[in-house]
Amino acid sequence: MDEAALHSLLEGVRSGTVAPDDAVAILRRLPFADLGYAKVDHHRMLRQGLPEAVYGPGKTPEQCAGLVRELLNGGGPVLLSRADEEQVSAAVAANPVPEPAVEVHRRGLTTVVWGRAPAREGRVMVVAAGTADLPVASECVVTMRALGFEPALHADCGVAGIHRLLASVTELAEADAVVVVAGMEGALTSVVGGLTGAPVVAVPTSVGYGAGLEGITALLGMLATCAAGVTVVGIDNGFGAAFAVARLLPRAAAGP
Amino acid sequence: MDEAALHSLLEGVRSGTVAPDDAVAILRRLPFADLGYAKVDHHRMLRQGLPEAVYGPGKTPEQCAGLVRELLNGGGPVLLSRADEEQVSAAVAANPVPEPAVEVHRRGLTTVVWGRAPAREGRVMVVAAGTADLPVASECVVTMRALGFEPALHADCGVAGIHRLLASVTELAEADAVVVVAGMEGALTSVVGGLTGAPVVAVPTSVGYGAGLEGITALLGMLATCAAGVTVVGIDNGFGAAFAVARLLPRAAAGP
Amino acid sequence: MDEAALHSLLEGVRSGTVAPDDAVAILRRLPFADLGYAKVDHHRMLRQGLPEAVYGPGKTPEQCAGLVRELLNGGGPVLLSRADEEQVSAAVAANPVPEPAVEVHRRGLTTVVWGRAPAREGRVMVVAAGTADLPVASECVVTMRALGFEPALHADCGVAGIHRLLASVTELAEADAVVVVAGMEGALTSVVGGLTGAPVVAVPTSVGYGAGLEGITALLGMLATCAAGVTVVGIDNGFGAAFAVARLLPRAAAGP
Amino acid sequence: MDEAALHSLLEGVRSGTVAPDDAVAILRRLPFADLGYAKVDHHRMLRQGLPEAVYGPGKTPEQCAGLVRELLNGGGPVLLSRADEEQVSAAVAANPVPEPAVEVHRRGLTTVVWGRAPAREGRVMVVAAGTADLPVASECVVTMRALGFEPALHADCGVAGIHRLLASVTELAEADAVVVVAGMEGALTSVVGGLTGAPVVAVPTSVGYGAGLEGITALLGMLATCAAGVTVVGIDNGFGAAFAVARLLPRAAAGP
Amino acid sequence: MDEAALHSLLEGVRSGTVAPDDAVAILRRLPFADLGYAKVDHHRMLRQGLPEAVYGPGKTPEQCAGLVRELLNGGGPVLLSRADEEQVSAAVAANPVPEPAVEVHRRGLTTVVWGRAPAREGRVMVVAAGTADLPVASECVVTMRALGFEPALHADCGVAGIHRLLASVTELAEADAVVVVAGMEGALTSVVGGLTGAPVVAVPTSVGYGAGLEGITALLGMLATCAAGVTVVGIDNGFGAAFAVARLLPRAAAGP
Amino acid sequence: MDEAALHSLLEGVRSGTVAPDDAVAILRRLPFADLGYAKVDHHRMLRQGLPEAVYGPGKTPEQCAGLVRELLNGGGPVLLSRADEEQVSAAVAANPVPEPAVEVHRRGLTTVVWGRAPAREGRVMVVAAGTADLPVASECVVTMRALGFEPALHADCGVAGIHRLLASVTELAEADAVVVVAGMEGALTSVVGGLTGAPVVAVPTSVGYGAGLEGITALLGMLATCAAGVTVVGIDNGFGAAFAVARLLPRAAAGP
Amino acid sequence: MDEAALHSLLEGVRSGTVAPDDAVAILRRLPFADLGYAKVDHHRMLRQGLPEAVYGPGKTPEQCAGLVRELLNGGGPVLLSRADEEQVSAAVAANPVPEPAVEVHRRGLTTVVWGRAPAREGRVMVVAAGTADLPVASECVVTMRALGFEPALHADCGVAGIHRLLASVTELAEADAVVVVAGMEGALTSVVGGLTGAPVVAVPTSVGYGAGLEGITALLGMLATCAAGVTVVGIDNGFGAAFAVARLLPRAAAGP
Amino acid sequence: MDEAALHSLLEGVRSGTVAPDDAVAILRRLPFADLGYAKVDHHRMLRQGLPEAVYGPGKTPEQCAGLVRELLNGGGPVLLSRADEEQVSAAVAANPVPEPAVEVHRRGLTTVVWGRAPAREGRVMVVAAGTADLPVASECVVTMRALGFEPALHADCGVAGIHRLLASVTELAEADAVVVVAGMEGALTSVVGGLTGAPVVAVPTSVGYGAGLEGITALLGMLATCAAGVTVVGIDNGFGAAFAVARLLPRAAAGP
Repeated sequence: MDEAALHSLLEGVRSGTVAPDDAVAILRRLPFADLGYAKVDHHRMLRQGLPEAVYGPGKTPEQCAGLVRELLNGGGPVLLSRADEEQVSAAVAANPVPEPAVEVHRRGLTTVVWGRAPAREGRVMVVAAGTADLPVASECVVTMRALGFEPALHADCGVAGIHRLLASVTELAEADAVVVVAGMEGALTSVVGGLTGAPVVAVPTSVGYGAGLEGITALLGMLATCAAGVTVVGIDNGFGAAFAVARLLPRAAAGP
Repeated sequence: MDEAALHSLLEGVRSGTVAPDDAVAILRRLPFADLGYAKVDHHRMLRQGLPEAVYGPGKTPEQCAGLVRELLNGGGPVLLSRADEEQVSAAVAANPVPEPAVEVHRRGLTTVVWGRAPAREGRVMVVAAGTADLPVASECVVTMRALGFEPALHADCGVAGIHRLLASVTELAEADAVVVVAGMEGALTSVVGGLTGAPVVAVPTSVGYGAGLEGITALLGMLATCAAGVTVVGIDNGFGAAFAVARLLPRAAAGP
Repeated sequence: MDEAALHSLLEGVRSGTVAPDDAVAILRRLPFADLGYAKVDHHRMLRQGLPEAVYGPGKTPEQCAGLVRELLNGGGPVLLSRADEEQVSAAVAANPVPEPAVEVHRRGLTTVVWGRAPAREGRVMVVAAGTADLPVASECVVTMRALGFEPALHADCGVAGIHRLLASVTELAEADAVVVVAGMEGALTSVVGGLTGAPVVAVPTSVGYGAGLEGITALLGMLATCAAGVTVVGIDNGFGAAFAVARLLPRAAAGP
Repeated sequence: MDEAALHSLLEGVRSGTVAPDDAVAILRRLPFADLGYAKVDHHRMLRQGLPEAVYGPGKTPEQCAGLVRELLNGGGPVLLSRADEEQVSAAVAANPVPEPAVEVHRRGLTTVVWGRAPAREGRVMVVAAGTADLPVASECVVTMRALGFEPALHADCGVAGIHRLLASVTELAEADAVVVVAGMEGALTSVVGGLTGAPVVAVPTSVGYGAGLEGITALLGMLATCAAGVTVVGIDNGFGAAFAVARLLPRAAAGP
Repeated sequence: MDEAALHSLLEGVRSGTVAPDDAVAILRRLPFADLGYAKVDHHRMLRQGLPEAVYGPGKTPEQCAGLVRELLNGGGPVLLSRADEEQVSAAVAANPVPEPAVEVHRRGLTTVVWGRAPAREGRVMVVAAGTADLPVASECVVTMRALGFEPALHADCGVAGIHRLLASVTELAEADAVVVVAGMEGALTSVVGGLTGAPVVAVPTSVGYGAGLEGITALLGMLATCAAGVTVVGIDNGFGAAFAVARLLPRAAAGP
Repeated sequence: MDEAALHSLLEGVRSGTVAPDDAVAILRRLPFADLGYAKVDHHRMLRQGLPEAVYGPGKTPEQCAGLVRELLNGGGPVLLSRADEEQVSAAVAANPVPEPAVEVHRRGLTTVVWGRAPAREGRVMVVAAGTADLPVASECVVTMRALGFEPALHADCGVAGIHRLLASVTELAEADAVVVVAGMEGALTSVVGGLTGAPVVAVPTSVGYGAGLEGITALLGMLATCAAGVTVVGIDNGFGAAFAVARLLPRAAAGP
Repeated sequence: MDEAALHSLLEGVRSGTVAPDDAVAILRRLPFADLGYAKVDHHRMLRQGLPEAVYGPGKTPEQCAGLVRELLNGGGPVLLSRADEEQVSAAVAANPVPEPAVEVHRRGLTTVVWGRAPAREGRVMVVAAGTADLPVASECVVTMRALGFEPALHADCGVAGIHRLLASVTELAEADAVVVVAGMEGALTSVVGGLTGAPVVAVPTSVGYGAGLEGITALLGMLATCAAGVTVVGIDNGFGAAFAVARLLPRAAAGP
Repeated sequence: MDEAALHSLLEGVRSGTVAPDDAVAILRRLPFADLGYAKVDHHRMLRQGLPEAVYGPGKTPEQCAGLVRELLNGGGPVLLSRADEEQVSAAVAANPVPEPAVEVHRRGLTTVVWGRAPAREGRVMVVAAGTADLPVASECVVTMRALGFEPALHADCGVAGIHRLLASVTELAEADAVVVVAGMEGALTSVVGGLTGAPVVAVPTSVGYGAGLEGITALLGMLATCAAGVTVVGIDNGFGAAFAVARLLPRAAAGP
């Protein structure tokens, strides 16, 4: 319910077409659809210009399918993230139209996308440190595509061979937003943060061994970076980084 | 052994019908049944008004079955919690009467309940942050039912769509006890704690990724909550939250 | 703003005495006083039956004094907790009437209370494991007194001399609420939890050495307790435990 | 050295006015001034549109003063952050013109600013959870002012009194960027993230006790937030959040 | 090589029957058998009165079988601990005489014992908190039997039903050594430590959930115990506790 | 109350000289003196053969003085441990006879001992890794002296110069108990554990830097030692190690 | 691109055979082959004298095969490390010549080596604490062989039987580099570090239980070692230790 | 005692000039001077070619002075590290000749050096990330000077301005050893490790805030580095890094 609707409601009360008791009830009810196991937030697109996504883990295949259906009814795009095979099957079978895009994430987890948001402007780079970081980087890319972006993916730019990153220095300087995806020590973040003045969103990954601590080391390193103004999302959270970019780039396509 | 029994015993000593040596022996023995692998505490219902439950992990199927049997002999209800399939089969086969209620928990763990305690009064709400928190919330609900409550379950009230929670603000204000079940950052606890003056028991769940640390993040957040007087149980411990509610609501049905 | 006030407002809109634009503005403003550096929540007593307290750390002495003044204007009682000497001096000097009660906490931190809530019913025990836990236990006691309770403090009941606790077994069985305050390994919680069916709120303290980890060990032990239904607050949080008790005991004296 | 300068250098080589050996040496030297104890990066403003700041801890007062001087020579603004009293005195005495702005941070640490960047556009909100979070919020505000912003500071919006935040819901919806500053459990981040579609930068603070772990709890909670697309900087890092905002808002004043 | 052998060697040198060069070589070689993948310490029984055991994890089945064989050659008893099914099969097949005792530990890990040390004196109690702690307690018992003890196992003595432990208070007071095996919060250790003056060796187990942290919570609690003079071994280390008891009880049966 | 007293009490009930109600009251009261702030356990010497000690931190100087006085009344010896200067002054002034022994611990913490237990047998070695571990080793030694031992202190035996330890190899082999005090990585424990069959109690110290983590590293290393049967107490807990030795060596002097 | 090539390029610019625009483009491109999913660093052998290796985890079998092929094109040797069965099959099938050496690591991970670097000088010892540490030690040995060394492997030298290590004291003193591979408490590192003046590289392993924390304990212990000048690599990182040795021993065979 | 001395001793036994009993005693005594509180290891220079140093913390000023004196008697150089003002005064007053070099470390800790080892060969670079890392870098430099090196210190090379490091790329390539000193995220290590084939010893520092965790973040990042063959010492351990370099560079000046 936006401000206009609130005015309209109160006007109805004032003019007597809406009873005060009914207004009390309505005011407490912002729009969501209660499926029993979930309350689908149809208001989010209006409130934030961001679509709601279905996070797979812990949900039954039927719940995944039902949530996708409800969201598709509200207009797309719809994302199903971190879904296992059963969840993907159920959701795709129940929601065949339009044809969803499926992106296989590692460890049997998959992102499925139905539809696509209107195109968004902005040169977005996704820079991954190693080949092993590609699944997280891909989750970020597929989510950004659903949100309307056309990101450029630069793989294997780890700082142990710094010239591989320096080859992209011009693109970095001209980017409107950069997502850095790195595991191990996450040092790539600091170097990229120093090479560009664009917003840098860092995604630590659980890639690495020896002292990587399943991504904790990269997470801490990115938070402690010596490059001022870099921000960080959770471990392996390519999904969150894509939404972070959607928040910061011109919302011409998403808002009034 | 309650205080009356102690008086009776000592009166027997005074009157000569009980030898002092025997009294020494008896005084050291409070009532429990020693099955060799377990000492069943028949005294708990008297001492606490709370039934004893069987915690599955680490026990053999035979031990689970035997413990349930011994406890049913002492009067119900009996709970078998966090049991795997083999344990459930053995316990249900060995204890068919009365018909147990079975609630499937995630990761192959199940709660089984034989019988039900007398009805307890009190409006109890179980508020879950996300659909993925439902298995833990369900463990809490099934346990509370065994204890005699009729809790109301509100699913998917996460604070990222705060209006979904605000829709329940009256119920929250009027509740006698509220259990908050949340993973990720557990922020729902603080918002609920600020909206009601009722006792709030928070259950962190191991739901989430990125920096959820298998529930540690939610646990810490709930303990550090800015809402005064909220209390917390262990991660995924819907069972413990149900018992906490049983401790705090009028024990009319359970004690003298 | 309670429900009656909302009806009244909307009735005003309906009857034309309140313009819709004004109603929009009012509906957005629940009652709090904005001091610039703080938004004093005069609504909490109505909403929760719990007074708001001033938490000292990080505030200037002037801010402490001002917040206490604003809250006293709203009716008492008012608590200033974890205040250092400068904060206490400023707050007491600026708010001399009624005479505040001052309780010295360790490490130079003090709780000051102005006024007292109407008496609350319920037998409340505060059981402390060691003499070194007394400062936290005292914070809990002084806060509960401000909230209208008359708690009984049992000091030095640590389980290494279990008979000291067993001497209080009847009082434990008959209590309406028990707060356990313990550092080191926090084992007292589990024993108390097994001896009473009353609500047990556990407060881990930062007392101990060797492997106490500044209270983390006691905190974890209390959360992992084998006594079902015990709940926990943060380390050294005697204040929070008092509010937890206020939430769970009959609110006859505090709200309609 | 920008791309034009590189062309010019190579043109000099081609035309014979620059010897290849000299070019090799130059190509290795991007512009910085080596003070022995520091290499001042005069190139950052060109490369990133961001000024370089002097981080106080670990530096001698003389080094602080010298670094500020060198940076003022390169054009302003200049920030000296987390400086203790001796460092502030030395730096201010050695660099009196133009008059620096001094902002006192807690624990004796101070931010000093000489000059100010050209005005930047964008409605920026800084939302602080509690009064105790104000020092970190102030560090963020003073840094953003130096960078050319006019941020609006909203204090004491913690979620335990959610109506205090809801009072600002329109401003949140219309903001171009929001910085959330919160300690304890950091729940404010998730609620704000759900109310606005603008970029949200979360700053965990070391405020809190019980289980705050000096800010770790808030940090983890913000990273694990259920609000998609929120990003995080390090604990108490108001400085970093300001630079993050400078990266993401229209760089009209800083770039071509 | 004991002191007598050293004298004998040097006497040989003195008398000319041993060349100095040979003595140098011998002096560097204390008795162990080098199997390539292991150096079997035949000297341990002499040096410590303790048999050497084979720790399964990380070894091939062939290595396990070979090590057991080599140790049986040196005289028994021989223990193979934490062995998986393949390792047990290989070792038992290769070393059938005398008939080994096999004790199944949880998670597919098994202790196998060939032979038994001469009987040791001393009343040893193994007190386990819950039925789920029995596998670790059993590892301790079977190891102690191999070392010559006849320990008494008391199961399910957790402190939430403190009377179950108090029933054994006389045995505790009269024991020569007590091993406490407990998971969750490990509180049993402190209560036992206060009831007996005998040596208490605490074994934390990885049993528990909510905040048990795979045994870390019990470990920390045992180390921080309020009962003076209690000592601790590693998580689930029933094997180590048995050896600790062997070190502290009269070594009449084990040494010369 | 020992078993004889219990018989006597019950005999009184039987013969009619003790009323049952009085017996109930008595049975609940095991002997301790309640000072309000502490419950002094006069029963411990009988129950455990171990004296009770006063742990200074968190107690007022007056409480320390009072507790020492109460314990001296019950017969000695009395230990005041980890006391600061004020506590020592108050306790010594209030309890001048017999002359206490004062041992200065580092960081202003001191152990004071009044009296001494009857001599205990047994060759006890305290082996310290470095000179910086001496304060903890000294706390252990002074406590053991109070308990009746004459321990031998071997300083600076760290394994980086392994020959320094090997010089004591005969004494190690012949010891009845060995306490190892070590910080940094605590490796000394494993080497000593392999050289002797005697009980080894390891005390990690907070000595070290780089990755010592205030003693956590040494603690973990000692718990994970490859030497079977070594046991561990908390960090810097020389006091606890002394009591552990008192538990395990022949109690001829302390019990019947 | 080495310095000579840079001179040559600039000479080309000076003489007019290379256009400045082309030089700009070339200068940004150091030699690597971009396979899309990876940027193969053919320059590393020139820059560092170290071959590039393919780290298996997170890569598809096809990517592993392709990377090995690309690297073999650049000259060998090529290592594929931590590869699972599918990756090994694909890589070996696609790159049969020359015959690769395959070393099976534990948990289904394998090191494969194609070719071998020219022989390097230096006596290198790999000292492993236990048989269970052999897989990590073997990874180190096979990697060193690929790099041109002939290391000597000493197994089962754990300090609980210190004479087994002392038997190798002369070799330790004469070694040019020593790699210590140890789990549990990692104490072997300190003893070896004290016996030799050679470079010591310590590799903690995830071997151990009780308090080994999957190698964290050994890692911390090695970093906190009392033996000055010992250095450490990550947990189970036998690969990294081999490269560390390659960096420090005479690079006669590898560089000009 | 070196091998020659051992031969000589045994020859004495053979020839009858040394009694076997005396030889047993001598063989157990390697050369150290026992000062009671310390065992000075005069053998280290012979055994390792490395001087012994005195680590200040935990020692009394008198012990520091005495240890320095004893070591100077054995020939120099002697280092006193991490000494506070009192320790420095006592040690310098007691050991005035030759004139010691004093290097002030931060937080009141100081390194003092008496004498200097013969010059060692090798180009050693110490690369520090920020000015705040200089105290640790200086500890490393002054220690290396005492050991006979002439290291070159490069300050303020942090990767956020990567061109500052690239300016030293030739020196890095030609160095014989590089020490990297960095706090915050420690990313400098990975970049340096990729630019040189020389041995790289990384020293994490406790510099940083936000998520630096007092150096833990840098430590983990360095251990998890993507640059193969880099090794690490403990936090702030400039001293240890210097000794690591002394172990790996040609020992021409130090050993036979």
